[in-house]
Amino acid sequence: MSEVRQDPLTGRRVIIAEDRAGRPDEFDAAPARRIPIDCPFCAGSEHATPASLAVYPAQAAEAHISPDAHSNTRREGEHAGWQVRVVPNKFPATGEPGERWRPHSAAPHAGVHAAESLFKAASVCGSHEVIIESPDHVAGFSQLTPQQAKYTFVAYRDRMQAAADAGHAYAIVFKNVGAVAGASLQHAHSQLIALPFTPPEIETQVGNASRHHQLRGSRLLCEMTAQERKAGVRMVAQTDHFAAFCPFASRFAYEVWIAPRQPVAPYQQSSCGLLKELAALAQDVTQRLQTVLRNPAYNFVLHNAPFHLDKHVAAAQQWRLEIFPRITRTAGFEWGAGCFINPVLPERAARELREADIATEHRRPANAQTRRTMQP
Amino acid sequence: MSEVRQDPLTGRRVIIAEDRAGRPDEFDAAPARRIPIDCPFCAGSEHATPASLAVYPAQAAEAHISPDAHSNTRREGEHAGWQVRVVPNKFPATGEPGERWRPHSAAPHAGVHAAESLFKAASVCGSHEVIIESPDHVAGFSQLTPQQAKYTFVAYRDRMQAAADAGHAYAIVFKNVGAVAGASLQHAHSQLIALPFTPPEIETQVGNASRHHQLRGSRLLCEMTAQERKAGVRMVAQTDHFAAFCPFASRFAYEVWIAPRQPVAPYQQSSCGLLKELAALAQDVTQRLQTVLRNPAYNFVLHNAPFHLDKHVAAAQQWRLEIFPRITRTAGFEWGAGCFINPVLPERAARELREADIATEHRRPANAQTRRTMQP
Repeated sequence: MSEVRQDPLTGRRVIIAEDRAGRPDEFDAAPARRIPIDCPFCAGSEHATPASLAVYPAQAAEAHISPDAHSNTRREGEHAGWQVRVVPNKFPATGEPGERWRPHSAAPHAGVHAAESLFKAASVCGSHEVIIESPDHVAGFSQLTPQQAKYTFVAYRDRMQAAADAGHAYAIVFKNVGAVAGASLQHAHSQLIALPFTPPEIETQVGNASRHHQLRGSRLLCEMTAQERKAGVRMVAQTDHFAAFCPFASRFAYEVWIAPRQPVAPYQQSSCGLLKELAALAQDVTQRLQTVLRNPAYNFVLHNAPFHLDKHVAAAQQWRLEIFPRITRTAGFEWGAGCFINPVLPERAARELREADIATEHRRPANAQTRRTMQP
Repeated sequence: MSEVRQDPLTGRRVIIAEDRAGRPDEFDAAPARRIPIDCPFCAGSEHATPASLAVYPAQAAEAHISPDAHSNTRREGEHAGWQVRVVPNKFPATGEPGERWRPHSAAPHAGVHAAESLFKAASVCGSHEVIIESPDHVAGFSQLTPQQAKYTFVAYRDRMQAAADAGHAYAIVFKNVGAVAGASLQHAHSQLIALPFTPPEIETQVGNASRHHQLRGSRLLCEMTAQERKAGVRMVAQTDHFAAFCPFASRFAYEVWIAPRQPVAPYQQSSCGLLKELAALAQDVTQRLQTVLRNPAYNFVLHNAPFHLDKHVAAAQQWRLEIFPRITRTAGFEWGAGCFINPVLPERAARELREADIATEHRRPANAQTRRTMQP
């Protein structure tokens, strides 16, 4: 069985080739060894990061910035009461916040007249922030307390709004768990990069959603979600306002999207109640992935619309959360063709995730404390 | 220093952020452990693969199919004289060659009327071939004999022509070296996937090249190559007909493109002499990568134009070989934004590769025999 599927929102073409999964593999996919460092994200190490941009819960902020918060005399594990905090990335991908988006002045190509040069560059006026999701040294999203998970999604919202207010064109929120997924630190954290331009992948989606809205009068993602719910075969879990499913044209094996069941406002306008529900479902999905795939590396990407859209274009957009484990390797074909080979049928992945036994002992009781030990 | 660069051919936007390279890393990037299997690509194991589609040199073909070729009494290392051979992939990403490109008949979404369904699928009428680059168990491209390297590029040409003759829309040739680059077997090999459609990445490039040709009357890649040669700062190596350089908007650290210095015919019409020169330069570049990056995983992608183009569109196209090591991890940002963060300035990468000491002891004399031992 081998077929190509096209995703209507992203335009991605994916070859679903289940036979590929049976091929021999000479290489052992042993997880990367961890060389523990003095974790800068743990409570008590606040001095190792730049000053917080935001702290949750809000009343912890004052305690956090008090001189006492940096004292070495505090007991290990004790901290100023914060559950989630946001700091500037010490190693940013973007330039200074004050820098302007401008054509590159230094000619990078001696001897070629600037107007004729094919090489265009600009400085990156933006921001790069880290959302530290817990004061405790835990790695996976499902290991956070429900409160930390909620504050994480609230922090995404608030920092996205701050990026919009600062005049940036777009802010992407993403999360890398495990070395294979691009993490360089183990402590649970997400990142926000605000950019002076809309990335190409997002521009494509905005265009596809707008065309669909003009033709059918509905939001493309909402219609996709409705069809997924009706079909049922790719559904993983649901809550009152959200559906979690393996999209029809999943580019990664066991990829899951969490999408609102009905049209909702841009992400940065979400209510705390809605984000609490989203956080709980994201914890449920990551727990299912951990159970079925035995602690895989994975990414989150929050796909929100660009900030400053024309009203008609904005009305066509709908945000979603993508969660994708990184169990298959990306090879020359994917990088060359911009097209993916997925060896696991999304219907099969969804059934496994749906039926996963995320029994009581795996689920965190609502009031449980996070432990300092790592996931198995 | 952080700037965004745009590649005129692919349209890719890349953030060059050298400061990122200094960030702490808690994970050890130890190479995957190899669990040796009975290698199906070594001489003497021809029975482990489907029958050859092509054998090089040509006179080896007859010996290869003789019963004696499969005899167990032949001494190890002795084989029917083939240097490179091409076989069908036993675990193909594509369907049967006879299958038609057609809308999917089985409704994958119960309850939704087919005409209204957002989910489009088709079977993949194509082919998936493996080019085995040596009868000996070597891994890297620079370890092949010059003759094997040349035959590899000749095999690409011949199989690409066969795919064009069979009516496929596009054939992508790629090579995965090392587990991180997507290889599942160590023995030096490439792959060709022929597809019934032109992949999105290629369509974008064809369009950009065509627009440039209409405006300026030249092939975009040739003009880029001319500007790179004039600027000099990103040049790695040159031969009479080819230039190797780190492109201005390299998406991967130490990425190298090999492009013709003057317009040449589509890849499948290349002369053996030209391909011999290309193979030698590709060996030179991979040797430089091995020296500077100490045996990295890497990919080759041969970007050729689609087969059945309008004459005017075809006149705007120019093939190239991309070689990119896989030393940086692709994270949520790249998958979400379709935009890359490269922590190594291409000018710096080019200087290191240009100045690499690929001295006599590293270079293979023209007539040397490949050894069965692996690279260090």
